[in-house]
Amino acid sequence: MTAIDSVKRLLLISNSTLYGSGYLDHAEREIRDFLGNTARVIFVPFAVHDLRVYAAKAQERFRDMGFVLTSIHDVSNKARAIDEADVVFVGGGNTFRLLKGLYDYELLGPIRRKVAAGMPYIGSSAGSIVACPTLKTTKDMPVVQPPCFEALGLVSFQISPHYLDSDPSSTHMGETQEERIMQFLEENAEPVVGLREGSILRVQDGVVTLKGATTARIFKRPPVGSEHTHELRRNPGADAARDSKPTDHRRMHRDSGTCIPLVWRGQSGCASSVEYAHTRWRISRKARVVGT
Amino acid sequence: MTAIDSVKRLLLISNSTLYGSGYLDHAEREIRDFLGNTARVIFVPFAVHDLRVYAAKAQERFRDMGFVLTSIHDVSNKARAIDEADVVFVGGGNTFRLLKGLYDYELLGPIRRKVAAGMPYIGSSAGSIVACPTLKTTKDMPVVQPPCFEALGLVSFQISPHYLDSDPSSTHMGETQEERIMQFLEENAEPVVGLREGSILRVQDGVVTLKGATTARIFKRPPVGSEHTHELRRNPGADAARDSKPTDHRRMHRDSGTCIPLVWRGQSGCASSVEYAHTRWRISRKARVVGT
Repeated sequence: MTAIDSVKRLLLISNSTLYGSGYLDHAEREIRDFLGNTARVIFVPFAVHDLRVYAAKAQERFRDMGFVLTSIHDVSNKARAIDEADVVFVGGGNTFRLLKGLYDYELLGPIRRKVAAGMPYIGSSAGSIVACPTLKTTKDMPVVQPPCFEALGLVSFQISPHYLDSDPSSTHMGETQEERIMQFLEENAEPVVGLREGSILRVQDGVVTLKGATTARIFKRPPVGSEHTHELRRNPGADAARDSKPTDHRRMHRDSGTCIPLVWRGQSGCASSVEYAHTRWRISRKARVVGT
Repeated sequence: MTAIDSVKRLLLISNSTLYGSGYLDHAEREIRDFLGNTARVIFVPFAVHDLRVYAAKAQERFRDMGFVLTSIHDVSNKARAIDEADVVFVGGGNTFRLLKGLYDYELLGPIRRKVAAGMPYIGSSAGSIVACPTLKTTKDMPVVQPPCFEALGLVSFQISPHYLDSDPSSTHMGETQEERIMQFLEENAEPVVGLREGSILRVQDGVVTLKGATTARIFKRPPVGSEHTHELRRNPGADAARDSKPTDHRRMHRDSGTCIPLVWRGQSGCASSVEYAHTRWRISRKARVVGT
């Protein structure tokens, strides 16, 4: 295990389109702020079946923001394209298809190395999941089989995007998103961030910051006698609340920040799912989750 | 490819618990009718984390119906337990966990052989999915990784249980079940039966019959110029309607029965997902889907 990684820069978006607005509209301010004067964006479209249409949509949207976007499916030497880009944007769709594409074109290594060297990474939905240790928190159908479930491992926690709170009035008996995440925690040790639509995680300077218009929820394996989930809110008073030594259990969890260690160190190749269950995670007191 | 298999007997249930009733209550009549005087039920509980609790629940429920149920997790020689049982019941939960359990204990071969010899198979939710060629139509999180996605292949179509119709008033932007099934069809050739909660498929005498209180929906890759989905209804007038040569496109699809060939012939070991996309399926005019 290494110390907290302050070089890594990630913008992990729950969803590319928010109800009532256009593609990436709700994330535009964050993307602009995150990228600054970055010029060359390499786009990974493998989560969607029609690569050409998807690439054109992303290209137009980033051009509107003043960035030059190239889709990696149009490039013959894909590893070099990652190497020469200023930023990588991994789009949403089907997570299994996306991860299989990353394996098929041997892009996991090049992306990990560039992000470790400071290249900004933007992921949306499935693109946010593959930034995690595995794809095990996707809700997508496993329509294709990637060689293994291990993903980029750019962060040490899992994201469950499009997080939808359970509806107590529902008569549907299929598992809720919360129940599915509980199944994940029965088998795996990583904490899970349920990112509600509209919410964004920004990883920078060794800190994970919750951004966007909505909030998130953290799930983790319960230590004996404590809760397994707590709310992450964009609360301007969070620092003040921490300073006043709050007695609220959930708030203490949030402010101690022990749920989201920033460093993930896994195998570089494929590992069986069983190994994850026995992996020990570094819990760093430096890692914080704060409101903006 | 062989002729239609009239020996196979399957009861594939969408969900074990229907809103407002107890465990398997809504399926009890069908289970009793399907099993008749069958005595020894072997239960496969691997979809759920707490095997002991799950087995006790199933044991009690089947005892109430007059059957003796043994959970396979309690048995040392599991292959022999399948061999000696009169019926197998595969319970619901997480489909990835279930399929991994079937592989870990090498149960796919014994179950396939016994079902091919006429042993009745009851599956519920995840237990219905693993009766299909693959688990690729599950909505569960991939919390553990089975060695491959190939499942029992007792039928040639895929089931998407707990099928939930899209809500046009929803503001949630995550994919609907229909959109997820469309992603499946972008990559795979098998037709998909969206089994609404409360519905059951009974396979017997070379015929698939829709049972239960609700209906189902069939999705398939669209031939040029035709629809990709149509409704399967429990319609007592179906035969009469067929005889009168209906002009309704959906009804013609249903009554021609070409969507649900009964025979699936796959590799006995693991196969890559790509192979499925190129598999050719026998379309038999004898296969029918009828109301009760």
